[in-house]
Amino acid sequence: MPAGGEGGTSGRGPGRFITFEGGEGTGKSTQIRLLAQHLAAAGHAVTLTREPGGTAMAEQVRTLLLLRGEARMDPMAETLMHFAARADHLAHCIRPALAEGRIVLCDRFTDSTRAYQGAGHGVPLTQIDALDEMVTGTTQPDLTLLLEVPPAVSRQRRVARDGVGGGDRYEDLADDFHARVAAGFSQLPARYPGRIVRVDGSGTETAVAARIAAIVAERLAL
Amino acid sequence: MPAGGEGGTSGRGPGRFITFEGGEGTGKSTQIRLLAQHLAAAGHAVTLTREPGGTAMAEQVRTLLLLRGEARMDPMAETLMHFAARADHLAHCIRPALAEGRIVLCDRFTDSTRAYQGAGHGVPLTQIDALDEMVTGTTQPDLTLLLEVPPAVSRQRRVARDGVGGGDRYEDLADDFHARVAAGFSQLPARYPGRIVRVDGSGTETAVAARIAAIVAERLAL
Ligand SMILES: Nc1ncnc2c1ncn2[C@@H]1O[C@H](COP(=O)(O)OP(=O)(O)OP(=O)(O)O)[C@@H](O)[C@H]1O
Ligand SMILES: Nc1ncnc2c1ncn2[C@@H]1O[C@H](COP(=O)(O)OP(=O)(O)OP(=O)(O)O)[C@@H](O)[C@H]1O
Ligand SMILES: [Mg+2]
Ligand SMILES: [Mg+2]
Repeated sequence: MPAGGEGGTSGRGPGRFITFEGGEGTGKSTQIRLLAQHLAAAGHAVTLTREPGGTAMAEQVRTLLLLRGEARMDPMAETLMHFAARADHLAHCIRPALAEGRIVLCDRFTDSTRAYQGAGHGVPLTQIDALDEMVTGTTQPDLTLLLEVPPAVSRQRRVARDGVGGGDRYEDLADDFHARVAAGFSQLPARYPGRIVRVDGSGTETAVAARIAAIVAERLAL
Repeated sequence: MPAGGEGGTSGRGPGRFITFEGGEGTGKSTQIRLLAQHLAAAGHAVTLTREPGGTAMAEQVRTLLLLRGEARMDPMAETLMHFAARADHLAHCIRPALAEGRIVLCDRFTDSTRAYQGAGHGVPLTQIDALDEMVTGTTQPDLTLLLEVPPAVSRQRRVARDGVGGGDRYEDLADDFHARVAAGFSQLPARYPGRIVRVDGSGTETAVAARIAAIVAERLAL
């Protein structure tokens, strides 16, 4: 289907909004790039973006959030920083792109806030949901791909990418934090069965990309 | 009354929480310093702080918010940045100080968000109030001093302080923005009659300080 050919399904412009979620090293950034290429090759107008980030203001917030060795930040403060960046990202990037009928692919979105600040740091999901209602409103993703790999695989991929002890502030947090984040992600599909699809992220990049293309074709007819 | 001698009135520690509000150049920073000296001379433990700011994280947010020439920021994003800084400020400075029985004096607080982001930029007060409930909760100020001077006086004071064309990003905004902010501040005492007291900020620094000391003595017996 060409971009804008049929209208949207979400009441906020003719485009489609797809988010990629999952823990570190599960392959989100790799797979979102491959899906962008696949959709662009099929003639769609694609916007590839990420969170936190996607606008000048939001990238500055990203720098502040991911800086290593920063003083401990209050978990609610951290949550609000993510939603502040998200509000700017929605206003100045995502909503305009959707209004033009583009397919927006976003590397992490509110489900990461639910997993990291919610399950990981203990901010109540009711507060995250209230902020999501205020900030995201009706601009909910049409489809969320939740990439899942066994912990040993993601650890190995991260070390291959960043070296031992590499990465950002989140990767410095203790193992039990990451276990809570993983549990948080794994509970989300049951909460949003119409939106979130689990994707087996193990195997080659090409094998995972084929799984994703099949899901996108089936769910969104793209 | 010595700090902690009688317990607090607000259900969140024995200290007292006083905020200073008003437009630019009304004399907040000048008067808060004088009140801090006055209370310290009377033997109270005083914490003097400001918003946005007051912790390492919140001061970084302040830098991001006040930088001149920054790309336009979505008003809700700006509001959430202020509340993110406030959450950290409350968690790591204000609440611990109140718990120790200190008198916390804060240069701007949520009423500035209501005036600037609410009245000035059009963010609905219902959303600001929902965020205030989430972030500030029961740590509401015991007393808010709203400094008011005629626009010509504050303009003259600002120019004397910063020079023509000086100041930060907010001072670059158009006159009608500042008129909405002023109107926003002026409507707040009716909304919070038990908390906010208008202070005539004209006259000498000493004259204004005497008015403020009288209000603080009467309202909080300090
Ligand atoms: N299917 C795969 N097989 C082997 N290695 C892979 C596969 N997919 C990605 N990788 C590699 O694993 C590393 C992590 O992948 P990627 O950066 O895409 O993960 P991510 O989910 O975006 O991680 P983060 O959350 O840290 O951004 C990269 O070095 C990438 O090249
Ligand atoms: N009563 C006064 N009479 C004359 N000048 C004053 C008086 N009070 C303060 N000033 C001067 O006016 C200028 C603005 O005062 P101040 O910085 O205290 O205002 P403010 O409300 O904190 O402003 P801002 O919102 O910009 O921080 C300063 O140069 C200060 O020295
Ligand atoms: Mg990535
Ligand atoms: Mg000041």
